[in-house]
Amino acid sequence: MNLSAHILKIAKAAKKASYALALASTAQKNSALRAMAHALVNNQDYLIKENAKDLKAAKTQGYSKALVDRLTLNPQQIKAMADSLLETAKLKDPVGETLQTIKRPNGLLIKKICVPLGVVGIIYESRPNVTSDCAGLCLKSGNAAILKGGREAIHSNKAIFQILKGQLKKTKIPLEALQLIESTDRTAVRELLQLQGFIDLIVPRGGEGLIRFVSDHSRIPIVKHDKGICHVYVSNQADLNMARRITMNAKVQKPAVCNAMETLLVDKAVARKFLPSIIADLQNAGCEIRGDQKTRAIVNNPGRGTACRARTGVIKRATEKDWRTEYLDLILSVKVVDGLQEAVDHINTYGSHHSDSIVTKDKSQARRFLDAVDSACVYVNASTRFTDGYEFGFGSEVGISTDKLHVRGPMALEGLTSYKYEVYGQGQIRQ
Amino acid sequence: MNLSAHILKIAKAAKKASYALALASTAQKNSALRAMAHALVNNQDYLIKENAKDLKAAKTQGYSKALVDRLTLNPQQIKAMADSLLETAKLKDPVGETLQTIKRPNGLLIKKICVPLGVVGIIYESRPNVTSDCAGLCLKSGNAAILKGGREAIHSNKAIFQILKGQLKKTKIPLEALQLIESTDRTAVRELLQLQGFIDLIVPRGGEGLIRFVSDHSRIPIVKHDKGICHVYVSNQADLNMARRITMNAKVQKPAVCNAMETLLVDKAVARKFLPSIIADLQNAGCEIRGDQKTRAIVNNPGRGTACRARTGVIKRATEKDWRTEYLDLILSVKVVDGLQEAVDHINTYGSHHSDSIVTKDKSQARRFLDAVDSACVYVNASTRFTDGYEFGFGSEVGISTDKLHVRGPMALEGLTSYKYEVYGQGQIRQ
Repeated sequence: MNLSAHILKIAKAAKKASYALALASTAQKNSALRAMAHALVNNQDYLIKENAKDLKAAKTQGYSKALVDRLTLNPQQIKAMADSLLETAKLKDPVGETLQTIKRPNGLLIKKICVPLGVVGIIYESRPNVTSDCAGLCLKSGNAAILKGGREAIHSNKAIFQILKGQLKKTKIPLEALQLIESTDRTAVRELLQLQGFIDLIVPRGGEGLIRFVSDHSRIPIVKHDKGICHVYVSNQADLNMARRITMNAKVQKPAVCNAMETLLVDKAVARKFLPSIIADLQNAGCEIRGDQKTRAIVNNPGRGTACRARTGVIKRATEKDWRTEYLDLILSVKVVDGLQEAVDHINTYGSHHSDSIVTKDKSQARRFLDAVDSACVYVNASTRFTDGYEFGFGSEVGISTDKLHVRGPMALEGLTSYKYEVYGQGQIRQ
Repeated sequence: MNLSAHILKIAKAAKKASYALALASTAQKNSALRAMAHALVNNQDYLIKENAKDLKAAKTQGYSKALVDRLTLNPQQIKAMADSLLETAKLKDPVGETLQTIKRPNGLLIKKICVPLGVVGIIYESRPNVTSDCAGLCLKSGNAAILKGGREAIHSNKAIFQILKGQLKKTKIPLEALQLIESTDRTAVRELLQLQGFIDLIVPRGGEGLIRFVSDHSRIPIVKHDKGICHVYVSNQADLNMARRITMNAKVQKPAVCNAMETLLVDKAVARKFLPSIIADLQNAGCEIRGDQKTRAIVNNPGRGTACRARTGVIKRATEKDWRTEYLDLILSVKVVDGLQEAVDHINTYGSHHSDSIVTKDKSQARRFLDAVDSACVYVNASTRFTDGYEFGFGSEVGISTDKLHVRGPMALEGLTSYKYEVYGQGQIRQ
């Protein structure tokens, strides 16, 4: 069978299975999730053995330490994967919920009912835990899942998949409800993206290249989990001690994630007071700073106006490209702005509509920022790092949607559902 | 300026205007809608004069009477357009509504707030009232609109657009929030579909060719308003008098619309009793029937088992293609099925996931049909013709979405919105 026919066969089988899975009870789904969790832990030696093949290949190919770290499965990470499945089992099942009830004058009763989407294709990179997290979320929300992980994690993903799927054999849920595409060829992804009618949603999770490839080729609706170019704006009414804590947390605590800050915007009224010390702190934490002209004038030539004695290294000039870059690293671009409007305009122009924060004591300023910034999550006096399914109380997540349609921000179970209208009549006809 | 630069300029201006429109008050938006309604009526002579140019061209090109009817603007239709805008002004403004409030253990307060999508592009055909309906719905939901109507209605659409836009001059809403693409070239649509980042949603409304063109070329998320291949299934437990009324209504009352029935499925247990008389009635109403083998055996050779003396014309054989065809005309395909499961399988395989109905007195049968049919609107004992914004109580609609993402079924104001999370802190940082 050629690749095209193979992918079509997988999608057709998933679609058929999705109709049975949509009718499965919450108890059946939860019992499968718990069995999967236990099976992962019980088979950890096998998982670690298979993972070692990926790690060996990664080292041979000279992958970065960060990538190798993301690939690695150890007992602790396997336990975390199992715990995540157990947590998913505890989440409220959205399927079947009545979202709205409408009674019409002609006697028709209309119920808007939450239903699974059908078949969800998830295309991702590196971390093998995505395989079990997404399989679990799709199962709980009643969706058949077609998983396509990266080449670098193929042995790990296959091993996790075999263990999870093995547990479906003991249930009434069809085995075909969980599918893994083993081909490491991008042609496989391209084939998958043509199968509208069999796949209801594609979720690309990964770097810019992957997102663009999927965007460009998909005939199936997608929800993108794109980059996070997040901002903190320190306003002229900011509590500067709070601004310092939030800035350090948003940049330094975990720089490689999408909700970390990439650009700091500082109001000109507080720039001389705030910038030299925060930049010294950031540099001491290993962070490279790239500043606009005003920032560099203040930091590189701290005249009499500067309030502190911070010793800062000379900083490089930020280019237009910096404002559009997700560093995912200990690098920060810094810009002095004339006021709230310039901050908002900068964020809406250069940001990725992910997570942005204002630090201010002024409520009307906060209101204007909340209203005008066009992002999934807009913060007042808090770190952008809270944009996360668990931190929002939603539980495990498929990712953080940077799209505006269907789901925005943390995408949890609800984002994997649609609805239908059930209309109950007694013979009504249209006049 | 070349076409590409011209379209880009329009989209950029719309994006900029959308930020101001998003902050407009409900009163400002309603006042603009009412002014637009009055202006349409006050300028009806101008509208009718411009419309006459389209009608003349349509006649020259030998368009069908149905198309000419859809194109025609008379005082009654202009009044209906104005009334629709007044109705939209009366609808509850969804923007700013708090959809969910979450209080986290760390003190963060998270509010999920309804916001406009931003810029909505609507690509449609024929009927000029779509121009004012969609302009009104976009305005009320705080979205800038880019309208692209069909070549056949270009003079009418330009006239309506000029009148509506003229009313914005008297408000604080930027003129650029309402845009019409006057080029009748498909290249204009193609250019528009590339402008992700400036346009947030594309809604294609029209025939299969338009939908496919938009689907194939759009880099912007789309919500499709595709064909309606709607079914009525007469079960073995049906009240056959009710089945007769519903069948006639769903097929004959207005055959040219998407919620009209295209295929009748009849349970084998009631086929001999039900089919000859209903087919005679349909034929008497001018409807052509195409039947599967069993239907033809019953109707073309009514043996001793048939209960009635209906005189039916000989009926043609339905082909595989018929099950997939939206006739939008007085043509009906008919199939005898072995039971509920075959009906459901037929609907899920050949239907367009739009609107499907079961006629049955048996509640558990109804439940199985509601659960298993994968369509936007699933009916029990009612005509499929009720799938409509007004009939559901939503008011004027953008169309009927046949997609599962973002919005399904009648797409009204709510379907033109997204949400953002507002997160209120007191200096919280992530541990």
